[in-house]
Amino acid sequence: MAVELKDLAPLLLKTERANGDVDPRVLTNVLRGGQAANDRRKELLQVIERHPVLSDRDMMFRNHTQRYEFGLKKGFHYVKLLQEGGYTDPVDQQILYKAMAEPLGFDVHRAMFVPTLENQGDDAQRAKWLPLAKSYKILGAYAQTELGHGSNVQGIETVATFDKATQEFVVDSPTLTSRKWWPGGLGKTANHAIVHARLFLDGKDVGVQAFLVQLRSLEDHQPLPGIEVGDIGPKVGFNGVDNGYCAFHKVRVPRENMMMRYAKVLPDGTFVKPKSDKLVYLTMVQVRAYMIKTLGVQMGTASTICTRFSAARIQGRTPDNKGEFQVLDYQNQQYKLFPLIAISYAAHFAGTSLVEMHDSALDVIKRGGSSFGAKLAELHAVSSGLKAWLAERVSDGIETCRRLCGGHGFTQSSNLAHIFTEIVGANTYEGTFDVLVQQHARYLLKTLASLPANEESTKFLNQSKQYSDTKLRCKAQTSEDFGNLDLLLEAFQTRVARIILTLASQMKNTKSDGNACMVLMTRASTAHAELILLEAFIRGVKSLPSGPEKHSMTHLCSLFGAWLITNSLGDFRQYDYLSSGQVDLVREQIVRLLPIIRKNCVLLTDAWDFSDFELNSTIGRYDGDIYRALVKRTADEPLNKTQVPKGYEKYLKPLIQSDL
Amino acid sequence: MAVELKDLAPLLLKTERANGDVDPRVLTNVLRGGQAANDRRKELLQVIERHPVLSDRDMMFRNHTQRYEFGLKKGFHYVKLLQEGGYTDPVDQQILYKAMAEPLGFDVHRAMFVPTLENQGDDAQRAKWLPLAKSYKILGAYAQTELGHGSNVQGIETVATFDKATQEFVVDSPTLTSRKWWPGGLGKTANHAIVHARLFLDGKDVGVQAFLVQLRSLEDHQPLPGIEVGDIGPKVGFNGVDNGYCAFHKVRVPRENMMMRYAKVLPDGTFVKPKSDKLVYLTMVQVRAYMIKTLGVQMGTASTICTRFSAARIQGRTPDNKGEFQVLDYQNQQYKLFPLIAISYAAHFAGTSLVEMHDSALDVIKRGGSSFGAKLAELHAVSSGLKAWLAERVSDGIETCRRLCGGHGFTQSSNLAHIFTEIVGANTYEGTFDVLVQQHARYLLKTLASLPANEESTKFLNQSKQYSDTKLRCKAQTSEDFGNLDLLLEAFQTRVARIILTLASQMKNTKSDGNACMVLMTRASTAHAELILLEAFIRGVKSLPSGPEKHSMTHLCSLFGAWLITNSLGDFRQYDYLSSGQVDLVREQIVRLLPIIRKNCVLLTDAWDFSDFELNSTIGRYDGDIYRALVKRTADEPLNKTQVPKGYEKYLKPLIQSDL
Repeated sequence: MAVELKDLAPLLLKTERANGDVDPRVLTNVLRGGQAANDRRKELLQVIERHPVLSDRDMMFRNHTQRYEFGLKKGFHYVKLLQEGGYTDPVDQQILYKAMAEPLGFDVHRAMFVPTLENQGDDAQRAKWLPLAKSYKILGAYAQTELGHGSNVQGIETVATFDKATQEFVVDSPTLTSRKWWPGGLGKTANHAIVHARLFLDGKDVGVQAFLVQLRSLEDHQPLPGIEVGDIGPKVGFNGVDNGYCAFHKVRVPRENMMMRYAKVLPDGTFVKPKSDKLVYLTMVQVRAYMIKTLGVQMGTASTICTRFSAARIQGRTPDNKGEFQVLDYQNQQYKLFPLIAISYAAHFAGTSLVEMHDSALDVIKRGGSSFGAKLAELHAVSSGLKAWLAERVSDGIETCRRLCGGHGFTQSSNLAHIFTEIVGANTYEGTFDVLVQQHARYLLKTLASLPANEESTKFLNQSKQYSDTKLRCKAQTSEDFGNLDLLLEAFQTRVARIILTLASQMKNTKSDGNACMVLMTRASTAHAELILLEAFIRGVKSLPSGPEKHSMTHLCSLFGAWLITNSLGDFRQYDYLSSGQVDLVREQIVRLLPIIRKNCVLLTDAWDFSDFELNSTIGRYDGDIYRALVKRTADEPLNKTQVPKGYEKYLKPLIQSDL
Repeated sequence: MAVELKDLAPLLLKTERANGDVDPRVLTNVLRGGQAANDRRKELLQVIERHPVLSDRDMMFRNHTQRYEFGLKKGFHYVKLLQEGGYTDPVDQQILYKAMAEPLGFDVHRAMFVPTLENQGDDAQRAKWLPLAKSYKILGAYAQTELGHGSNVQGIETVATFDKATQEFVVDSPTLTSRKWWPGGLGKTANHAIVHARLFLDGKDVGVQAFLVQLRSLEDHQPLPGIEVGDIGPKVGFNGVDNGYCAFHKVRVPRENMMMRYAKVLPDGTFVKPKSDKLVYLTMVQVRAYMIKTLGVQMGTASTICTRFSAARIQGRTPDNKGEFQVLDYQNQQYKLFPLIAISYAAHFAGTSLVEMHDSALDVIKRGGSSFGAKLAELHAVSSGLKAWLAERVSDGIETCRRLCGGHGFTQSSNLAHIFTEIVGANTYEGTFDVLVQQHARYLLKTLASLPANEESTKFLNQSKQYSDTKLRCKAQTSEDFGNLDLLLEAFQTRVARIILTLASQMKNTKSDGNACMVLMTRASTAHAELILLEAFIRGVKSLPSGPEKHSMTHLCSLFGAWLITNSLGDFRQYDYLSSGQVDLVREQIVRLLPIIRKNCVLLTDAWDFSDFELNSTIGRYDGDIYRALVKRTADEPLNKTQVPKGYEKYLKPLIQSDL
């Protein structure tokens, strides 16, 4: 749609909505777990939005120090809000917390310290510490990572030595690289920490254990003797949090401070080994499943902002020179943006499935079932692969959205950079990309070696012989054929089966040298993750009621599949499964779908039902009044509080008036 | 190399250097324009490093407001340094300026305001204003971009109306979206601006012209009547700069304040049209050529930091469980990092060629030559395509380096995030990706339509018939064959020729609807940019003296080519130019080259000869003593100046002691 008039941004966005035929509420119910849950969510968002302190959205004006200090204030008011408002439901608490839009010094206390006491403390420990922790009287950190060791927990250098005489552990940091490094809240907030240290009993190393160590006085918050603690400084994200360091100089804690639910140390120094604990794996799966859902939401946030901006922004003359294009008119804009909208939905569907599978596995375990080993291994592998894929693609996708908004995306008030910096750490924490893809690929290899596969996500491997037939050809004859979801699935199954078979043979050739096969493992994990995302998307679409929403989502799903194919054409062209001509058809299909999806793209992102408060974006406003918002927001910049900058007299005037 | 001992980071890096056979100084001479130039560069770096103010490296602790205010101080001292140190050579000035590692409020004054007066002012204007501008008595901004219009300069809404009676122009901002938005230094620093406005003479629109408008009083820096001016707030990068907004309310400037070197307005209101000005294009080429070189340097910075960290960091047990891998041992790390080292060199070689071609074109013009039209068109197109490609790949590459450094890459003290935020704007300014790839692709189409091509970069199109033969096959039979640089070039030429031919036919089919062919135009531009980068790299390698440096660089160049192929297998597999089996060979070649390149990778990045002061990275130190540097840097975090955070009494104590 070519536009002639100026400053019509709000009208343009309105027109986009009017031109679509999707009812976003139908999709909102899917994305937000039904209307009741969404209503509750929005009600709680308003609690934060109306709060004099917690509604703060000025983090962009603050440096790390200021964000932390303001974060303390926010944290205090958040706790008061929970206590005084009676918000005891963990789901409610989580919504309220997330609505503040930046993690705080309390974050790890809530997410890791309390759960560790709950899961790894024995009954006496839980009775003693949980009430204190839950009422924020003791504030805890989770000190595992060290300066020299992150993902390799077995490399931890902090030492705990049992002193039988005093019935104490002596916790010590023997090297430069052994100091704890990174734990959130450790720097300035926490007065206690769960500390992971290598335990020595009578000189014998019995492995890494967890200890509760008090760090600071409960009287005046001063570090206790032997504790060297502080903040590690500014980071890419999380600057409201005091990620910290800590060195222990022969610090003594009572025997009762080792987490004793599984492993134990008896008073005589006897070590009782822990029973193998499947629940640890299950917790990891749960954390990742929720991360996957969060990644979907964040992709939804960024793509909503970008879609609205693209609709409201005009730029560049139309060929007839009579008006200007909306940015959304450009084929390249659609080509880059729409697959990101698709990723947000795919991540939502895949994450939701994983959460459900986790919950039912937990049920089985709680009911004393024992046949969950295979399911657990699958969940662990699949959640690893999906987390690796999505963390990378969603971070990159958010940055793509930012670039697609041109200069206005570059201003912090667009909020796209903040969204990026708060999520991009997901590439690193909870397992780096390389570690995760290997875990995933090794699971696939193991499954292949012990066919038949019974789990849903790898059943296709039972047909691996068929897929490995180099005469197998994709049946598409027209570009529209690539909208056939079954045809797409076969293509993705063929691709991943072949990569896993190649990987198996390469592992054999290298005598199982995993490192020599790592690039190929990455390809295997990627291919399987994409198959799972596509399957989840297809299942999600199929579950929708008939109507324009299902119709539009089917197109988005087709685009997702075709787009994924064009990103990995080397795989799909292998042994000419796709011919050179079929590749042209896939490309044609994408270009054909773009204007179709464009018709509803604003509504497909509206479906997330983000409030303007949540988006916190001058250029992502629901009403499209982006220019007024940009202008208005400049009034908050501290430099604009005076006409003349502070440094004028000292640094500008002497230059300007040097000869006057 | 598996490592058993702890905290051996410096030793590990030393060992890497000892294991290589490249003399980095040979390559330094290539990258830095000879030893004399490099010596001068390092001498000037030390001037900044030893300066009490200009050596500041604490930007990570500051918010935008603080960075701007400190930037004023830096700017003042920088001007004093130039004046008192007698640094008049523009190359010296540029090195000194860049050594401060962040752009300042003066930036646009130096880079755009003064050159505009020089190039677009007539003799009288230059005589009047240049001495004032060059001695920083008037401080200028370059106000083109508006809230509603960026890349489409013809859409500018600011108006200048000539008032014959008073011989003045009346400059006005008639709409919300017409306010100037983004210009660097406009917010708080500049007291003048070159303002682009649509000129009306007797009610007739004669197009966009440039006017010198005074914004602030030279007495007290207060905005003049009718001027509404301020800072647009925090951004992703450039936070030391006061990017500003400005609205004009019927502001009057004398007729003599229109830039009159080309277009003119006579006292009676007659408009004298400008002669077409090829120099404007040439300036654009020059700016982009230097951007391309800068992108190479920045890719060099990030890959140097990442390579050193990867060598010094150990993580993850070896299969025999006896030690730990260096991160650099991992195949995936090499696979992601080494192509980025290659990009830094490719950008350097391509940028250097462009600068040389620009300089000789300028010579021709200055000597009154007229046969430079074709050369100029080529330079403009190629610099557009290369800038688009490199801005995207280098920004993404720097972020990849950051992720490859795990948690330590996430700390600001690694400096990788700062490097990213200061360069990522290159995707937007000086032409966004989509605009540039279209310009580039249209040039290629035009060349194809008027063969034979005579310019170096498109001569291959004369063989387009041969390349379009669907029976053409790549001759590689072994993986090593993909190290044959001529074979690689043929593959890249075939690929790009075919895409341009397809594009030409699609343009025909769509009746030259550029927007309907934009995805394909992007592919054409990308393919040609990659060909040019590869050619430049090959030329660069061939010009090296024989020896281990040439040998090692040849491997890096081969890797670059093979890696590029695997990124676009759909193109290279078209009509089976590469067979399915040959794709396996390309992949094999990459995996084969990785350990070979690893042998010298530290030395290949050492070759940039960055000082530790330049890198400003705790984890990128030349000596590898990264852990001590990380610990040391935390002392500078303001939160660590006290043991107990400020907010303790008010926000933490009430929670901790609530029932005590």
